Amino acid sequence: MANFCLIVQYDGTRYNGWQRQGNTPDTIQEKLENILEHLYGEPVEISGSGRTDAGVHALHQVANYRVPRMLSRYSCQEIHQYFNRYLPQDIRILSVTKADERFHARLSAQSKLYEYRIDCGEVSNIFERRYLYRIDEPLNIRKMQEAASYLVGTHDFKSFCANRHMKKSTVRTIYDISFDLRDGILYIRYRGDGFLYHMVRILTGTLIEIGMGDRLPSQIPTILEGLDRSLAGFTAPPQGLFLVEVYYSEDD
Amino acid sequence: MANFCLIVQYDGTRYNGWQRQGNTPDTIQEKLENILEHLYGEPVEISGSGRTDAGVHALHQVANYRVPRMLSRYSCQEIHQYFNRYLPQDIRILSVTKADERFHARLSAQSKLYEYRIDCGEVSNIFERRYLYRIDEPLNIRKMQEAASYLVGTHDFKSFCANRHMKKSTVRTIYDISFDLRDGILYIRYRGDGFLYHMVRILTGTLIEIGMGDRLPSQIPTILEGLDRSLAGFTAPPQGLFLVEVYYSEDD
Repeated sequence: MANFCLIVQYDGTRYNGWQRQGNTPDTIQEKLENILEHLYGEPVEISGSGRTDAGVHALHQVANYRVPRMLSRYSCQEIHQYFNRYLPQDIRILSVTKADERFHARLSAQSKLYEYRIDCGEVSNIFERRYLYRIDEPLNIRKMQEAASYLVGTHDFKSFCANRHMKKSTVRTIYDISFDLRDGILYIRYRGDGFLYHMVRILTGTLIEIGMGDRLPSQIPTILEGLDRSLAGFTAPPQGLFLVEVYYSEDD
Repeated sequence: MANFCLIVQYDGTRYNGWQRQGNTPDTIQEKLENILEHLYGEPVEISGSGRTDAGVHALHQVANYRVPRMLSRYSCQEIHQYFNRYLPQDIRILSVTKADERFHARLSAQSKLYEYRIDCGEVSNIFERRYLYRIDEPLNIRKMQEAASYLVGTHDFKSFCANRHMKKSTVRTIYDISFDLRDGILYIRYRGDGFLYHMVRILTGTLIEIGMGDRLPSQIPTILEGLDRSLAGFTAPPQGLFLVEVYYSEDD
């Protein structure tokens, strides 16, 4: 089998997330797979590094697909051009490369970087408004940073998981949470080995509540220990969230 | 009379331009005037530094309005907040200041800076696509710069004016045309003492045709001398155009 690795960028606004699911229309995966089916003349399954929710964007989503070598008559450049000719303008393929046969976008992923963008400028940002979550109240970023320091590390993040019936482990490691305030926009970046369903958005909602003074940073350990979703903050809306990078070990 | 100066920012995508005209709905001026009428309880007329066409954006449009001193019971801060509370999210007031009584946004303006944004990156830009004009073919920017050097200066720009029945002078001075290529986006900035109807867009369309090799830079003097719209290039679409700044003398 030939194995191709794709870097995919998308504006998630009008999609029902990455993953093709039953009869739900308008998923990113479906748009990509439909084009590959036209190209190769038979169905091709694409694996993404992970799902992104409805309305969430990606700067560098990673995906891969395998086709039998006898079908694989197109060069990476031809596949790349074919995708971008037929994809809608809110999805772009940034690169197509040949991958090691063992490479799998989800199973080989070692860590991921997500970014949440909050518009907390004096006047709301007009031109990036579709990709920002606007907060009118002042945010105490120091307090948010203090809270974030309790979140970094290996913890059971069950309180920050929207799936109440999650049977697998909810233990994850967050390597780093960084804050960057530029031109009235607060960029919060989360790097971790994996994220649970809605986890980044619940982390962000909780940090926002702390920034607004509705909660204290010191409550984070209690929230973590409680293993109960109702203890954490609200789920920040999807429009401010970007999957920025997926990291793989150098062997891949 | 009290005279107030406004700095206005807008995403022009869904508007029929700046200027209120007859029964045409959805102009920026109308949105602003409606709010002032609510605030003061009587109609107030706003003067913009100039019109922007349907679909054109502004980073810093300048406008002013006068109200009788007895009506002027609100502070600049109150007016500012009132505007941003009731304006749609694609129009924002960046500042409200008291101006000299003689100040007039259009008549006092000395020069203006417009920017046209062309997406000429290898892969089209997803997240700023609403504010870019996408060109798939490669552009020879050197040739565009050479052509621009013929445009700078005082000329009769009748060939670059879409109004065929313009009775006033079509002589204008362009002080500078600059090119900046960053992350696959070509920013062309035009600074001049004033611009005719569609002038920036026709200048840009002509420069694009030169960049694509369809015309030569040396044709510009002939186009200028011909005083005939049909000699110049196509009208670049409005979505890539921004009014960036309006300059006034320091006395104002």
